[in-house]
Amino acid sequence: MTKASICTIGDEILIGQIVDTNSSHIARSLGEIGIRTDRMVSIADNEDDIIGTLRAELGRNDIVLTTGGLGPTKDDITKAALAKLSGSREMVRDEAQEAIVRRILHSRGLDVLESNLMQAMVPAACEVIPNRLGTAPIMVFRFSEAEFGHPATLYAMPGVPHETLGMLPDVIADIRSHNALEPITHRNLMVYGLAESALAQLIAPWEDALPADMHLAYLPNTLTGVKLRLSVFGGSETSPESRISAQIEALRKILGPSIYSEQEDRLEAVIGRLLRDRGETLSAAESCTGGEIAHLITTIPGASDYFLGSVTSYAVSVKKKVLGVPAAAIRENGVVSADVAEAMARGARRLTGSTWAVATTGLAGSEGDGINEGGTVWIAVDGPRGTVSEKRVYHNDRERNIERFSASALDLLRRCILG
Amino acid sequence: MTKASICTIGDEILIGQIVDTNSSHIARSLGEIGIRTDRMVSIADNEDDIIGTLRAELGRNDIVLTTGGLGPTKDDITKAALAKLSGSREMVRDEAQEAIVRRILHSRGLDVLESNLMQAMVPAACEVIPNRLGTAPIMVFRFSEAEFGHPATLYAMPGVPHETLGMLPDVIADIRSHNALEPITHRNLMVYGLAESALAQLIAPWEDALPADMHLAYLPNTLTGVKLRLSVFGGSETSPESRISAQIEALRKILGPSIYSEQEDRLEAVIGRLLRDRGETLSAAESCTGGEIAHLITTIPGASDYFLGSVTSYAVSVKKKVLGVPAAAIRENGVVSADVAEAMARGARRLTGSTWAVATTGLAGSEGDGINEGGTVWIAVDGPRGTVSEKRVYHNDRERNIERFSASALDLLRRCILG
Repeated sequence: MTKASICTIGDEILIGQIVDTNSSHIARSLGEIGIRTDRMVSIADNEDDIIGTLRAELGRNDIVLTTGGLGPTKDDITKAALAKLSGSREMVRDEAQEAIVRRILHSRGLDVLESNLMQAMVPAACEVIPNRLGTAPIMVFRFSEAEFGHPATLYAMPGVPHETLGMLPDVIADIRSHNALEPITHRNLMVYGLAESALAQLIAPWEDALPADMHLAYLPNTLTGVKLRLSVFGGSETSPESRISAQIEALRKILGPSIYSEQEDRLEAVIGRLLRDRGETLSAAESCTGGEIAHLITTIPGASDYFLGSVTSYAVSVKKKVLGVPAAAIRENGVVSADVAEAMARGARRLTGSTWAVATTGLAGSEGDGINEGGTVWIAVDGPRGTVSEKRVYHNDRERNIERFSASALDLLRRCILG
Repeated sequence: MTKASICTIGDEILIGQIVDTNSSHIARSLGEIGIRTDRMVSIADNEDDIIGTLRAELGRNDIVLTTGGLGPTKDDITKAALAKLSGSREMVRDEAQEAIVRRILHSRGLDVLESNLMQAMVPAACEVIPNRLGTAPIMVFRFSEAEFGHPATLYAMPGVPHETLGMLPDVIADIRSHNALEPITHRNLMVYGLAESALAQLIAPWEDALPADMHLAYLPNTLTGVKLRLSVFGGSETSPESRISAQIEALRKILGPSIYSEQEDRLEAVIGRLLRDRGETLSAAESCTGGEIAHLITTIPGASDYFLGSVTSYAVSVKKKVLGVPAAAIRENGVVSADVAEAMARGARRLTGSTWAVATTGLAGSEGDGINEGGTVWIAVDGPRGTVSEKRVYHNDRERNIERFSASALDLLRRCILG
């Protein structure tokens, strides 16, 4: 199996100033084309460290990807290290990258300085994948078997996450075209509403009967549920697509509406698509989730096509005055109750005229209110077919509870829209 | 300077299933006691990899901290590797940890299985720091100069973040008591509203005049601004606290109200404290930030003492009907305008009866609306002394723009409350 190492270069990671999220994305993309990430390493902006570490990683892996260390101020250290490592002291100008540097500076109304143009200078030994999203090009060094005992390739990428991830498909394409990778086919299913352990138990008979060349991975996430990834390794007489489809169909029969998507990996994206397809609209009334549901919905581009708005009714006075929650419902059942959640949803729908409204009321912190324990939420959905509400209890910290409450509410909304 | 290496053990990081956030926290804590993190490494659950990597890291560092690889199912690999590495094949029962294991299982209503008790078995060569928050103990291996050419210590910690971070102070205390560390004193200042480069330019004369034993670090963050950390290394005739205080006072004169806190590192926490101290209340009206401001405010425990609620007015109809924004203001100036932002803030304040209201209207995506470019936001604050509004333009992606808009709005609110 082809093996890779992912190295980040930069003091800011080692002093704990930023968390490295690039490596995780890169590892997932490598895994999808059947490449195993053998290790991840973070090192300082120091020439000896860079050369020593990259030499060791190239010695033990087929592919080494680095991120970072290529900003205009740090440029010299990493590039000088790569030049030494590749035995290529001569620097050459990459025309394609220089054009991009000029275009980017121009679009920002900035003058083109000599230090900017230096970004387009690369060691003569490397190939360049022009970086369309930034000034530092991606440098590709291909080493022969003579140097590390096996052919090895080094990709030096920029470290700014939107550049790293935006240019990653180009790097993956280059890796595919230069390596004889075992064919691999994936399908993802997004599942919400079942804990990983309960899900595993439910599908165990199906999973145990999978053919030997198929592999199932569980990728859990608080906000989006569990991603199930079914992979087929290697070739086969029958096309892997049809074999994987048959297994997915069997899984769909077991899990039913707990599966919310194959394409999208966020509940709010699936809800957006459902609403847009139906020409329907949405509003929200939030208490304990404090705006997080509206925030999630509006992170989807084009949400203004279906999301009308929301009310965060943290104070009882706002629940009564703005959402029209009856004082009696609060007095008789308490603020954290089915009646109040349902009245909030109806209030948001009435106020905005939306097709659907989702509401939450609960206790996000760990302390109870004498009636409900901390982590309790009532979620409600009001729509053309009436109002439904459900209670959930989670035992996390405040921020994590808010995330779980919001995701549960979005999932109830999704199920209601589907009927 | 004492040097450390932080190693994570576990396949889930290498396949990109989870992002390693522990290492960043650990590096910051080490930095605060004057220890430099030399590298971070992530390796798989594989005995040879674990032994080979830890041996190399111990050879080049004074301290190696590992996280992960100690769950009940993976226990054998890491513990077996540590036993081999330390030459200690004998396993002994740690009484303190066994008592914790029994207590944790009992509190969850679970039976105590033999596999659970195995968690309290450790190689005879190690010292144990009992893990109060989980079943896997922290194992401390102290190696003599004979083994790695210098004294070296290995701390094997659990990888579940709340256990790792919860037990980190105990590990830091052990490191302090066993190493002759140079004394170090820190003070932090949180600054908002100045980009890192502008901030650096503004304080350059002050920074250039700092004594040689003082060091300033810039730690920028989209949501919270720039954290300035001033550190004094080593001893001194005068107490370092008074010398650092004098420098901080000089910095306060230069930066004035751009400094928002020394204690808190979030704008919404500072705003919460200001409002609670004054017995004042807050509401919000959000368009392009879509609920993020309300969400940030309500992540602070006790926010219900001062936050009454908010309206996310994504649709024009909600701006008019719920917030009372005059149709003429929208028709004449467009939705993204000072007039509309100010009318939204006044509307939220009127609707909820709050002392203060903050409002946003803008374009979070990269596309403009023909009048305003993408990334434009108008923010407004209405309060006892009237209404103010400001325009900001950012050039990030949608999610990042929403974060910047929200942080800018919170900072304007803070400045207005302060007068």
